Amino acid sequence: MRIAIDAMGGDHAPEQIVKGALDAAAAWTDVKLLLVGDQARIEACMQGAKPGNVELVHASDVISPDDEPVKAVRRKKDSSMVVAGRLVREGEAEAMISAGNTGALMTTGLLVVGRIDGIERPALAPMLPTMDDVGVLALDLGANMDSKPEHLVQYAIMGSIYRTRVHGLERPRVGLLNVGTEAMKGNELTKAAFGLLENAPVEFIGNVEARDVLSRNCDVLVCDGFAGNIMLKAMEGTAITLMREIKNAMTSSWISKLAALTVRPRLKAMAAKMDYKEHGAGPLLGVSGLVLKCHGSSNDQAVKNAIGKARVAVQNRLVESIATEFSRK
Amino acid sequence: MRIAIDAMGGDHAPEQIVKGALDAAAAWTDVKLLLVGDQARIEACMQGAKPGNVELVHASDVISPDDEPVKAVRRKKDSSMVVAGRLVREGEAEAMISAGNTGALMTTGLLVVGRIDGIERPALAPMLPTMDDVGVLALDLGANMDSKPEHLVQYAIMGSIYRTRVHGLERPRVGLLNVGTEAMKGNELTKAAFGLLENAPVEFIGNVEARDVLSRNCDVLVCDGFAGNIMLKAMEGTAITLMREIKNAMTSSWISKLAALTVRPRLKAMAAKMDYKEHGAGPLLGVSGLVLKCHGSSNDQAVKNAIGKARVAVQNRLVESIATEFSRK
Repeated sequence: MRIAIDAMGGDHAPEQIVKGALDAAAAWTDVKLLLVGDQARIEACMQGAKPGNVELVHASDVISPDDEPVKAVRRKKDSSMVVAGRLVREGEAEAMISAGNTGALMTTGLLVVGRIDGIERPALAPMLPTMDDVGVLALDLGANMDSKPEHLVQYAIMGSIYRTRVHGLERPRVGLLNVGTEAMKGNELTKAAFGLLENAPVEFIGNVEARDVLSRNCDVLVCDGFAGNIMLKAMEGTAITLMREIKNAMTSSWISKLAALTVRPRLKAMAAKMDYKEHGAGPLLGVSGLVLKCHGSSNDQAVKNAIGKARVAVQNRLVESIATEFSRK
Repeated sequence: MRIAIDAMGGDHAPEQIVKGALDAAAAWTDVKLLLVGDQARIEACMQGAKPGNVELVHASDVISPDDEPVKAVRRKKDSSMVVAGRLVREGEAEAMISAGNTGALMTTGLLVVGRIDGIERPALAPMLPTMDDVGVLALDLGANMDSKPEHLVQYAIMGSIYRTRVHGLERPRVGLLNVGTEAMKGNELTKAAFGLLENAPVEFIGNVEARDVLSRNCDVLVCDGFAGNIMLKAMEGTAITLMREIKNAMTSSWISKLAALTVRPRLKAMAAKMDYKEHGAGPLLGVSGLVLKCHGSSNDQAVKNAIGKARVAVQNRLVESIATEFSRK
């Protein structure tokens, strides 16, 4: 299996990206890694290492975080991200991974890699944190701001296949993000989607509320990109604000300062859990090849983890499963 | 000025409602209070008190929390809530207050009290908590699940007038709830609303994000009822979950237990601040009379506060100001 890595995307590219890729190449010898980017800079990062399962693919250009996504993908045809996408489209790689510009990566998925037949809108599907550390796959969380009921059904099906193929869940519970749990709650979009989801080939458990996501009220959370993003940022903002307040409260007396020492590791773990930046990463589902977004701040460990995740998804034929499901329609 | 009180609505009705009303009647002798509901039960709660500025209006029926709003308002014509609404419509009172069924109260506002000419959708406008305790007026937060761009502009204008008339803010800053602060962010609704808001007679400061509401990023937060509700419940759920985790962390050792004693009051205050139930209350703006929702769990103090708020709004001619603004169009 071949995985293309955008070596130039992300805050710590190319150093941390290359380092993570080398670690992954050593850990999984059944994977061939194609490092895409400025050959000289990548070689410098490799410091003479030449693993047999790592290959360099030169790309002279880079898409920056501030680039306008569609324009960048159209114009920067020799950027590391677009070249990686082309490798997937042309069958030279089964998957691509990038920590670069999220919008540009979604555009690369859509315009370069291409949609799976029958999929109307690919969806970005990160794992949201839950207090039990298991997580909820939420989609769409950023690819499409406006959705139709039929799109939400496609998200539900793709998300379910992902949780089954990649996480081994037998019957992932699908919840529809809504303002109440009763069946007829919500806006026109969710009311129409509810009826369609009841008849979709997924384990639909009904409407779920934003307040219960942290308690893992479902395995696949379906929402339009706008509402999902509002939810995520509200959770993040509340967590950051409360953690700061608590920190202040803990320095209000000598005894609380002393206690802070014992409680701090736990609070820190909670803060990390709620860090949105850590959870903006995930697969772009619905394109005909695996496209995986890493968060921009990814270090070598995060890159290695992403490669491991891509490896499992390719081994378990995620993209083929989605394509088969939609070819039946 | 006359304020009609739905004495039968709320978890602690009629006892706490009547008690709060009697306190208010004593505090503000320029207000005449019309207590609407079961005469015998209200009299029992009054325990022989007969203030000159309190009058009883008998209503034989009650709308319960589980009643389907539209059906209940249409059928229970002699319920305390509907009778209070009728007093406002017929000019027998300038304002009505209820801690009962929120949906039914919105329906009463719409069908019994009636819309202000030119207003398409009345909006529920509670104050959201902020860390500095000042708060943000958010609308719509529940009256309309689907909104058009023009509705959001009307919310902005009504919210601004409320903050000026009731809270004395000279030029309240209006923010549009969105997924990013850049001008062209968002879905079709917010993109269209953005352009309209730039030309509206309000102090529009642009898009604002859910993550910054607790830091009071604006004075009037404009959103459709669906997104607003998702935001509110995400904030609430995160706050409740984190506070519970912190409580657990604080009991993990004897020193942290000791510290908990010193930190607890501050944590409790924070928890109360974030309690959604406390913030589901607010005016229904856009109807031709003041309609004020109290939270269902209101005690006497909350009822008294609501009456005080209604008094200020009536004194400062809130409803007339909104009507004048929209009659110009």
